Amino acid sequence: MSVLVVGSVALDSVETPFGRVDDVLGGSATFFSASASVLSRVLVVGVVGDDYPVELLKPLEQRGVDFAGLERAKGSSFRWRGRYRHDLNVAETLETQLGVFSNFRPKIPPQFRKAPFVFLGNIDPRLQLDVLTQVEKPTLVVCDTMNFWIESRRPDIVKLLGHVDAITLNDGEARQLTDHNNLVKAAKWIMSKGPSLVIIKKGEHGAFMFTPRTVFFAPAFPLEEVFDPTGAGDAFAGGFMGYLARSGDISDASLRRAVIYGSAMGSFAVEKFSIDRLLEVDASQLAARVAEFRGLVAFQDEMPA
Amino acid sequence: MSVLVVGSVALDSVETPFGRVDDVLGGSATFFSASASVLSRVLVVGVVGDDYPVELLKPLEQRGVDFAGLERAKGSSFRWRGRYRHDLNVAETLETQLGVFSNFRPKIPPQFRKAPFVFLGNIDPRLQLDVLTQVEKPTLVVCDTMNFWIESRRPDIVKLLGHVDAITLNDGEARQLTDHNNLVKAAKWIMSKGPSLVIIKKGEHGAFMFTPRTVFFAPAFPLEEVFDPTGAGDAFAGGFMGYLARSGDISDASLRRAVIYGSAMGSFAVEKFSIDRLLEVDASQLAARVAEFRGLVAFQDEMPA
Repeated sequence: MSVLVVGSVALDSVETPFGRVDDVLGGSATFFSASASVLSRVLVVGVVGDDYPVELLKPLEQRGVDFAGLERAKGSSFRWRGRYRHDLNVAETLETQLGVFSNFRPKIPPQFRKAPFVFLGNIDPRLQLDVLTQVEKPTLVVCDTMNFWIESRRPDIVKLLGHVDAITLNDGEARQLTDHNNLVKAAKWIMSKGPSLVIIKKGEHGAFMFTPRTVFFAPAFPLEEVFDPTGAGDAFAGGFMGYLARSGDISDASLRRAVIYGSAMGSFAVEKFSIDRLLEVDASQLAARVAEFRGLVAFQDEMPA
Repeated sequence: MSVLVVGSVALDSVETPFGRVDDVLGGSATFFSASASVLSRVLVVGVVGDDYPVELLKPLEQRGVDFAGLERAKGSSFRWRGRYRHDLNVAETLETQLGVFSNFRPKIPPQFRKAPFVFLGNIDPRLQLDVLTQVEKPTLVVCDTMNFWIESRRPDIVKLLGHVDAITLNDGEARQLTDHNNLVKAAKWIMSKGPSLVIIKKGEHGAFMFTPRTVFFAPAFPLEEVFDPTGAGDAFAGGFMGYLARSGDISDASLRRAVIYGSAMGSFAVEKFSIDRLLEVDASQLAARVAEFRGLVAFQDEMPA
């Protein structure tokens, strides 16, 4: 099955303690596609300017990413420039140029409208809602968001929650959106607004998946070298949705596995700049890392006499 | 089998957003004992002043905690006064009165010297080293430490590392001790100094156990109400050592289970003030929480075709 993603396709310039790159592939839809395409077909809806080096997207096309929904508009592409210092958990934004992204109105091509899995990347919640009027009864709709929209469009996010099955957000955003410091309470608050699935990402501290009946936790993979954290969250979402689209199964057991596949893809994403490491991952590398995740948390709970 | 603990026996006064208590049972050896005694016999070595309400220790004695090594010295008991605000991860120390604890020289009673499991609570590393000259070939020695000793007695801690099998410390302390921000590197650095087991506690973010061959991770239990975090780390250590002392097994599989039992006891500790909740826990409650931990991380790693 295929997964539709609506989000940003950008050019990133990133500086970390280990090096720097300029104008490399970035944006939520790009990281998501590079990740999800290891597992399933991906349909991208986004916008780039007429300056975008679209030939750099070829490796993604070769992996089954369909860019028929990538609009090319007159003007500059979305550019982000950021820096990470010693603490790789904190991105310092040096510059954001929205360019053509500021007038982005997602148009879902007719051949994309029956996609069973839909990921609404981090864009204006009004546009996320509008996308839902253009698709036909998807099996699972997951949205992402960020602090900027929580501050400026909170009522729209709450409205959106009534129309999606799941949301991914980080712990700080969950606290900001719900006014609950405790993440269990924050997740319950969000579920009371609609979604039956809440994924709270904690970066290097792993991720929780809450449903009305269960809680699942996946650690972040303990890497010795984190090279560039940019895009880890979108790579997580790509692995999660890619797994579900590949299996077509949204049972609790499948959702748990999907969180682990997402965590595995997130752990690959940070090993190199941009989508470079994601493009190297094949099914066997992914399976090996998932097995390592299993080894990381496996225990038998027998009580000695 | 029994576990020997050397550490503080104190009186705590604690204020949280949910209430306050004055002069209740506290100290690392107290929390450790309350936790470990659910699983095994505990031998305490510590010191209290002549003002200590020793009758409050009765419930611990009834659970198999042996206080033959608890010295009563002339003077005031160790008192700690602290406060937690909205962020329950951060303890604000309002007052510390060391009292008789400042002249504490641990003396291990003859009948305690063959204890197979030894926990060196957070005291001066020179005293921790001295305790090791008083015990006879224990199966496993685990030490704890804190930022104060890392700042003031770093060479002694490094020396101590050459004489213990394991260390428990929190993530900030691991970074401070090793000068490595990355926890995998920090753990490797510590193992290069002697211990074959490094447990890095991350509070609400769980705990890592590193050995030369494997890494294990246990999440913190996602509680909806954290009432008072005081003593959670010592309750963790108590559950960990108590499990090992009960099973007598220090295989990798047993160590993993021990980390989960430690995490379970840590999660109970924070549900009430002082050791109040720990004293209520019985084997069946503990087994039930361990099963919940299993449910929290369990997944099957099959890859769909």
